[in-house]
Amino acid sequence: MTIKIGILGYGNLGRGVEYAVGQNDDMELVAVFTRREPGSVKTESGVPVYPADRLQDMKDQIDVLMLCGGSATDLPEQTPEYAKLFNVVDSFDTHAKIGEHFTNVDASAKAAGKIAMISVGWDPGMFSLNRLYANAILRDGNDYTFWGKGVSQGHSDAIRRIPGVKNAKQYTIPVDSALASVRACENPELTTRQKHTRECFVVAEEGADLAEIENAIKTMPNYFSDYDTTVHFISEEELLRDHAGIPHGGFVLRTGKTGKNGEHNHVIEYSLKLDSNPEFTACVLAAYARAAYRMNQRGMCGCKTVFDVAPVDLSPMSAEELRGHLL
Amino acid sequence: MTIKIGILGYGNLGRGVEYAVGQNDDMELVAVFTRREPGSVKTESGVPVYPADRLQDMKDQIDVLMLCGGSATDLPEQTPEYAKLFNVVDSFDTHAKIGEHFTNVDASAKAAGKIAMISVGWDPGMFSLNRLYANAILRDGNDYTFWGKGVSQGHSDAIRRIPGVKNAKQYTIPVDSALASVRACENPELTTRQKHTRECFVVAEEGADLAEIENAIKTMPNYFSDYDTTVHFISEEELLRDHAGIPHGGFVLRTGKTGKNGEHNHVIEYSLKLDSNPEFTACVLAAYARAAYRMNQRGMCGCKTVFDVAPVDLSPMSAEELRGHLL
Repeated sequence: MTIKIGILGYGNLGRGVEYAVGQNDDMELVAVFTRREPGSVKTESGVPVYPADRLQDMKDQIDVLMLCGGSATDLPEQTPEYAKLFNVVDSFDTHAKIGEHFTNVDASAKAAGKIAMISVGWDPGMFSLNRLYANAILRDGNDYTFWGKGVSQGHSDAIRRIPGVKNAKQYTIPVDSALASVRACENPELTTRQKHTRECFVVAEEGADLAEIENAIKTMPNYFSDYDTTVHFISEEELLRDHAGIPHGGFVLRTGKTGKNGEHNHVIEYSLKLDSNPEFTACVLAAYARAAYRMNQRGMCGCKTVFDVAPVDLSPMSAEELRGHLL
Repeated sequence: MTIKIGILGYGNLGRGVEYAVGQNDDMELVAVFTRREPGSVKTESGVPVYPADRLQDMKDQIDVLMLCGGSATDLPEQTPEYAKLFNVVDSFDTHAKIGEHFTNVDASAKAAGKIAMISVGWDPGMFSLNRLYANAILRDGNDYTFWGKGVSQGHSDAIRRIPGVKNAKQYTIPVDSALASVRACENPELTTRQKHTRECFVVAEEGADLAEIENAIKTMPNYFSDYDTTVHFISEEELLRDHAGIPHGGFVLRTGKTGKNGEHNHVIEYSLKLDSNPEFTACVLAAYARAAYRMNQRGMCGCKTVFDVAPVDLSPMSAEELRGHLL
């Protein structure tokens, strides 16, 4: 039984899903859908590209539609809309708006009898799962999440909007000493500045005032002013050569106490080191597409998150094989 | 709604479950059951101690029975037996016999309409979960599990059986360079010797031949002969002072490739550093007791493992709170 997959949106994430589907023998990519001119889009695998508005005619040819748009404007509209037609998976990652998104999507998916899996990826996603598991186990403890070393698209964009900046890439970097203190069960209370530093590689326009740009970055509220920030001016050639990738990752830790008088300390740590943020996210989406399909086959519907999915539903192996090989 | 918990077997694990239940406001410990003379057992919390054969009369007073016996002889009998009366949770950890245990327990639990959660803890348990998640995500990759640094009860016992040995403690230690190679995505093929070393602290009887004991340890098949083993002879006083704890832990890693030509590497790592192996295991058991109870309340029955449990069922928080705080 092959799970027929559609992709809506063919940027870095959509292309990542195309690769991920190719790594899963029980899945088949039917088509990529785009709001651009389909003729302008060429897929890596040669799978056909259709205009997004053809989706409504392909209800029976697609088991799970992967929504690969952005969280700011695409997904708040697309996920509730397409959950009326398909099982869908999205990577909605605006943490503060997940509740609202859930409510909207749940109504559509329930009315249509479909599964809509939202906020799939690594944070939200695998990091959230590890926070939940660790909290359920160590009841008396503290949570820590560190991001990086990795590229923050939002912070890179913010630098690019500064007058005189031609191009830029920003890395978020966890502070080693803070991580060490957490691992040593010192239960530190960490300020924003103590947890992460920010490193910026900036290509300035010719004749731009570098000191002014550096100051504009370091004092930018929300994005940089609460952090220790380093700014390096480099050439466009260096930027393209040394900073072309989209790596990311991070650490989720929970430390906690057990015993008669809390005399025993425990550290649970989960970490990711990813060469390609969108390709890894896409792999998580593919696993949850399998679960969405299976849960819907069993008659379930509505909006779900990674918290609602039994791990067995993510794997192509049978429950018996899993018990034999991975338990 | 309080979940009423019973404990069968009051060793290190049973006592750990007693502490863990005390950390969970939605649980209440009803009684400890023992096959020893109940008068000889004193609980930490003052909860009553009853003989094991009173369990059959307490069907309606206990929601989940925690089976805290050993995997060698206790659990293969107890789990199928008590699944006829109660929702049960065990920590059966003989990996090679999980299939057989599952089959036996499943029949009992299904006939009785109960949930029996087996092989709960950290390995099998949390480590297994991380193997499953990482395999479902990174389809093209390699798995590695390292144990330690921690006390192996089985290896400590094996040393104690050597003539001339009065007492002993054995630590399993992961090899740093092997871990580093895995994290660097070198995908090493590691022999037993390359993954772990073994360190032994031995109290010899007076006049015993130390060289002979050391040789007996280092050449012992299965337990030590395939490892680089270090033996330290110390006094009983030193052993009790410096090696009284039961720490353990370890690392589960999966590395994998994505992209058009597998050009991107990813590392997923999960690790535990535990001051008390049985107390941490007990905390995992408590979380899965909650899930067992909830799943049974929804009409589910049969044998389950950590693979079958949706994370949301492990937490005392509601699904909405979890989405708001941990997603």
